[in-house]
Amino acid sequence: MGCRQSFRQCCDRPKNTNVRISLPAVCFVWQIVMIILFGIFIRYDQESDAHWAEYRTFQNISSDIENDFYFRYPSFQDVHVMIFVGFGFLMTFLKRYSFSAVGFNFLIAAFGLQWALLMQGWFQSLDPMDGKIKISMESLINADFCVASCLIAYGAVLGKLSPVQLMVMTLFGITLYAVDEFIILNLIHARDAGGSMVIHTFGAYYGLSISWMLYRPNLDQSKRLNGSVYHSDVFAMIGTLFLWMFWPSFNSAITDHGDGQHRAAINTYLALASTVLTTVAISSLSQKTGKLDMVHIQNSTLAGGVAVGTAAEFMLMPYGSLIIGFCCGIISTLGYIYITPFMEKYLKIQDTCGIHNLHAMPGVIGGIVGAVTAAAASEGVYGKAGLINTFDFTGKWKDMVPSRQGGHQAAGLCVALCFGVGGGIIVGCILRMPIWGDAPDDNCFDDELYWELPEDEESIPPILEDNNHMRNRDVTESHFSMEQSQN
Amino acid sequence: MGCRQSFRQCCDRPKNTNVRISLPAVCFVWQIVMIILFGIFIRYDQESDAHWAEYRTFQNISSDIENDFYFRYPSFQDVHVMIFVGFGFLMTFLKRYSFSAVGFNFLIAAFGLQWALLMQGWFQSLDPMDGKIKISMESLINADFCVASCLIAYGAVLGKLSPVQLMVMTLFGITLYAVDEFIILNLIHARDAGGSMVIHTFGAYYGLSISWMLYRPNLDQSKRLNGSVYHSDVFAMIGTLFLWMFWPSFNSAITDHGDGQHRAAINTYLALASTVLTTVAISSLSQKTGKLDMVHIQNSTLAGGVAVGTAAEFMLMPYGSLIIGFCCGIISTLGYIYITPFMEKYLKIQDTCGIHNLHAMPGVIGGIVGAVTAAAASEGVYGKAGLINTFDFTGKWKDMVPSRQGGHQAAGLCVALCFGVGGGIIVGCILRMPIWGDAPDDNCFDDELYWELPEDEESIPPILEDNNHMRNRDVTESHFSMEQSQN
Amino acid sequence: MGCRQSFRQCCDRPKNTNVRISLPAVCFVWQIVMIILFGIFIRYDQESDAHWAEYRTFQNISSDIENDFYFRYPSFQDVHVMIFVGFGFLMTFLKRYSFSAVGFNFLIAAFGLQWALLMQGWFQSLDPMDGKIKISMESLINADFCVASCLIAYGAVLGKLSPVQLMVMTLFGITLYAVDEFIILNLIHARDAGGSMVIHTFGAYYGLSISWMLYRPNLDQSKRLNGSVYHSDVFAMIGTLFLWMFWPSFNSAITDHGDGQHRAAINTYLALASTVLTTVAISSLSQKTGKLDMVHIQNSTLAGGVAVGTAAEFMLMPYGSLIIGFCCGIISTLGYIYITPFMEKYLKIQDTCGIHNLHAMPGVIGGIVGAVTAAAASEGVYGKAGLINTFDFTGKWKDMVPSRQGGHQAAGLCVALCFGVGGGIIVGCILRMPIWGDAPDDNCFDDELYWELPEDEESIPPILEDNNHMRNRDVTESHFSMEQSQN
Repeated sequence: MGCRQSFRQCCDRPKNTNVRISLPAVCFVWQIVMIILFGIFIRYDQESDAHWAEYRTFQNISSDIENDFYFRYPSFQDVHVMIFVGFGFLMTFLKRYSFSAVGFNFLIAAFGLQWALLMQGWFQSLDPMDGKIKISMESLINADFCVASCLIAYGAVLGKLSPVQLMVMTLFGITLYAVDEFIILNLIHARDAGGSMVIHTFGAYYGLSISWMLYRPNLDQSKRLNGSVYHSDVFAMIGTLFLWMFWPSFNSAITDHGDGQHRAAINTYLALASTVLTTVAISSLSQKTGKLDMVHIQNSTLAGGVAVGTAAEFMLMPYGSLIIGFCCGIISTLGYIYITPFMEKYLKIQDTCGIHNLHAMPGVIGGIVGAVTAAAASEGVYGKAGLINTFDFTGKWKDMVPSRQGGHQAAGLCVALCFGVGGGIIVGCILRMPIWGDAPDDNCFDDELYWELPEDEESIPPILEDNNHMRNRDVTESHFSMEQSQN
Repeated sequence: MGCRQSFRQCCDRPKNTNVRISLPAVCFVWQIVMIILFGIFIRYDQESDAHWAEYRTFQNISSDIENDFYFRYPSFQDVHVMIFVGFGFLMTFLKRYSFSAVGFNFLIAAFGLQWALLMQGWFQSLDPMDGKIKISMESLINADFCVASCLIAYGAVLGKLSPVQLMVMTLFGITLYAVDEFIILNLIHARDAGGSMVIHTFGAYYGLSISWMLYRPNLDQSKRLNGSVYHSDVFAMIGTLFLWMFWPSFNSAITDHGDGQHRAAINTYLALASTVLTTVAISSLSQKTGKLDMVHIQNSTLAGGVAVGTAAEFMLMPYGSLIIGFCCGIISTLGYIYITPFMEKYLKIQDTCGIHNLHAMPGVIGGIVGAVTAAAASEGVYGKAGLINTFDFTGKWKDMVPSRQGGHQAAGLCVALCFGVGGGIIVGCILRMPIWGDAPDDNCFDDELYWELPEDEESIPPILEDNNHMRNRDVTESHFSMEQSQN
Repeated sequence: MGCRQSFRQCCDRPKNTNVRISLPAVCFVWQIVMIILFGIFIRYDQESDAHWAEYRTFQNISSDIENDFYFRYPSFQDVHVMIFVGFGFLMTFLKRYSFSAVGFNFLIAAFGLQWALLMQGWFQSLDPMDGKIKISMESLINADFCVASCLIAYGAVLGKLSPVQLMVMTLFGITLYAVDEFIILNLIHARDAGGSMVIHTFGAYYGLSISWMLYRPNLDQSKRLNGSVYHSDVFAMIGTLFLWMFWPSFNSAITDHGDGQHRAAINTYLALASTVLTTVAISSLSQKTGKLDMVHIQNSTLAGGVAVGTAAEFMLMPYGSLIIGFCCGIISTLGYIYITPFMEKYLKIQDTCGIHNLHAMPGVIGGIVGAVTAAAASEGVYGKAGLINTFDFTGKWKDMVPSRQGGHQAAGLCVALCFGVGGGIIVGCILRMPIWGDAPDDNCFDDELYWELPEDEESIPPILEDNNHMRNRDVTESHFSMEQSQN
């Protein structure tokens, strides 16, 4: 702790937010590296290669509709919307940080998905015959999933990091995710369709640990900007709703064809519906006159989707999904009311979007629910073939039984936690170096640092026509004088 | 009428908008009841159960792609977007009611879909073998449809009811809908793929009747807030466009596999395109200098989708769809210009969103179009198998002929009207009780009553850097003084 | 040039922006013509007709899922979102032209798609047996594509044309597009899945030529309105993101079933990801302190999708897609920085949205990439069947070879350029006639001319409750006095 403290002091030099060299350099170099690595490693798989026609005849596949594209594409597009519009707009709630919220989200997602295709490919789908990674629609979905974990982490540090730091955070985040995922899904053989553990738990603790390492004791100097305005809250609702609506696609995107996707979508739909009601209830209870708080509605209503992630494809039963959503709505909203202020005050963790309440706690709950429901699975409920399909008791895992599977699920959750916290601390150290161009404490949450902003809204000429010309002159003048004082 | 008047007076006590007890209570109690009822009644159906693999082998189904999930899921997601983003954002047009528009829409939809799964299940898909309701993707679409009728009703009372009242309105609305739908589709055997009758006609008259019962003679005390601002109109266009674009999915979501879905999508697409042109024409004609009115563009452009609902799967022919859209654009826009003010002044019906023009009239037209086109159906146009498929002349209806089907369609329309008006009057009586926390007449259309609002937009500190610190102090001070004067 | 100049002067009379006669007349007459022509020409095709059940049995098709609807519908809906929300919101960035951006986009798209169904039908799918055009989901996608080219052209003239002019521009644009497309795809037999040539190159040069013909030397009189405000930039990001996310659907919507759609989606996804990074890099480099410019992020990030359009279904290889995106991000952003001001100053082309950088240059690059990659195609990479499928070497083209195909692609690009420039000049001449109600030079980019605008945002009554009544009176008074001064 003392060591951390002194390391901190050594890094606390005056801030320079000019990223004119570092940001273009990072973007160019990394993109060129991507091109080279893609050139060496990445090829189309059987179903996206022009040899598909021959492969189809050879495999005796009756129709093009059996191409995995048609099983996955609608879900893929929904997930894609969640990543770019969902996460991007959810974070636009700050009054003067909407450009960065949606713009940096865009940047790091676009970089992250390329790196994820490589990392996940190396770990999971390297073809031993030719040493190439074969990509298909499912790889793209997995890359989007991987990116999601880094965008969750972005939520914790929103407003406090420079775009260069975000790129670094994403680079390491994706790397850690790929290792983490390989251990949990392949080595431990845990099931995690919707990623409660690998995406949400890992991503949230990764972000929270970074935020802890980058604790800013004087952040309240920026508190004038750490809040919303009316329209920015409405923008954020766009993000919330697209996340909420498409979450069934998120949790079902890579589950088994047929009943697996079908059931995962139904379970998620129900869990989310239930969460909305308990979120509203707790939010209303928490205020003197029963008024609702937009922060809760924007975030906690999504907790049920997180918590049902791991178990979405299991036979949770519809009422089981409702119960999970019920609990998570309560816990997540209470988290916003009590835990976030507590963490900021006593644990030195500043969590801008409250990802601890939206992703960390529900993610852990999701992992536990997954472990319990896996352990309780029986042939009576699933059927013999259903049990094998759902838990993938094939190959070297053919002798697995549900009770042991439950243990493996629990182990997976622990791995996700360790990777999140450990990785976050290491990456946080790296990000403390005073070379990244992050904002000074009194200027966080401000687009002004990294964006050319348009002139102020108030200077729009009013619509009255009679004195239009006179006004225009005034406006132009004041606009010029503004520019002068700025430069 | 006198009775209604005196009942009204008895209910007109001073308003208390504190919902801190009632809203959480309603949310908790109803959600717990949902969990219990889901536990007793609701299970997965064949295609979402883990036994699907066995069922598939047993039924000799060649591929997982035949699972109904793949026929319905893309349409389901589009409908889902319409319900939450479409309806939600369409109602954000009011300058200070966007939180409530999108937030309460969210709340009542999330509750409504759970209750709809139960109600529709009891009436339509109770398995006689085990007394359970088996749900699948199609049930979820139907639940979303059912919710749509209540969101339409919300449009009439937007800005005037408390969230508790909206929950009560939804509870009864869903219940009435399920009965109504059972009578129209099952007992009368009318066809109504896009729900012109069961969704739009019922929902709109249900809402209008409630609004009539809750007539507020002094509502003009709130007229300062009953209007839009520039950006709120742009937000509303998000709703309009998502409704408009996805309406083909709405009307085709539960039609027959294959040509039924294909044709319903094409017909809806064309009807909507045609509506846009006539809406613009009438809107421009109605103003002295030919300017367009955003209210018309936001709403009347959708009328064609409503009116083509019942007949979407019939052989309307592309030009038939265009004609329906053509007429509805005209009628709906004229409704906004002439009928809504008339209704408010003489019929005591205050219709905030103008649902009479967007849903009620086009819904009735849709019902009539459905009756006429059904009666005119012939084996020449549909083919023998096509006629049976389209109108479902199977089972106990195998001797049905198109001309009689036309009569049944008309009967269905009458039932929808009766349920809407009758149900609305009864529920309106219930909602007049002075216990629900609705807004006083001089404070309608105001988020302030039920939401913690962020500070005012004007107090964003300007972006000039030179005098940043001085300004910040000012802003913080004025912010504090605002809070003091508020409390 | 002198001729153009004098024609210009003859047209430059004082402007009258009243469209009360012309706009409704155009809408009504054209919609009625559409209905008549649809009545004469347009019918359902085999897969959307009620005879499908019989056809299916006859053709021995095993399942309804083989109906083309299920191959195309998810892509269709994504394309539909791009047309209406993507293009519509992308153009809302102007501070006072959001209504027109999204509203006129809506109007001309709704008209254009009807006319496109007819024009494309006459050229490409007229049934010789009965002289009817048979439409299906693929026709609807093609109609949306056709409309896209006119919406691109709208980007160049945004803020400067009246809705009547836009309708005329669309009428001719669709007509030219259909001829252009017929020559390129059918006569020349070029491949152009994502429309780099037929949609983007044609559309952009069509718009730019019109803008050149309609050059306004005094447009800087409106420069107070030719810019964004904070929230309008966030609205524009909605458009950007929906275009960006759904571009894989755009490029794969009408490619071959199976591997063709699969590969096109992957290639587009990768090209777009790569573009984002280089756009950010150049945008940051171009500013003194490395700040990003929203204009670049909103537009140049999409250039990769345009450039990969023609070759999306070819075996570009993942790294090939990345390289295309890499280059286009750079070129497009540099275009915004250097070429757009140059074109305005020296070439007299005022390009409001910078479509030259987003569509014209990347479109031409896409055409060249298509020609090169087609010429380089080999049986080794594609397989024998794959080569025939991908390039459609069937029927009278069965003796075609890749090297010659490359030449045909290049020829196609030239045709698109000629049609764009030539058509634009002719239509520009027509639009210069002083009868269309366009804006005067000092009042461009202003919704006020064609829309009833809501009262100003500043007049929202503050939320303080104590002095509510007094304020309301003030507000109402000032609102009235505003109305008086306006009339």
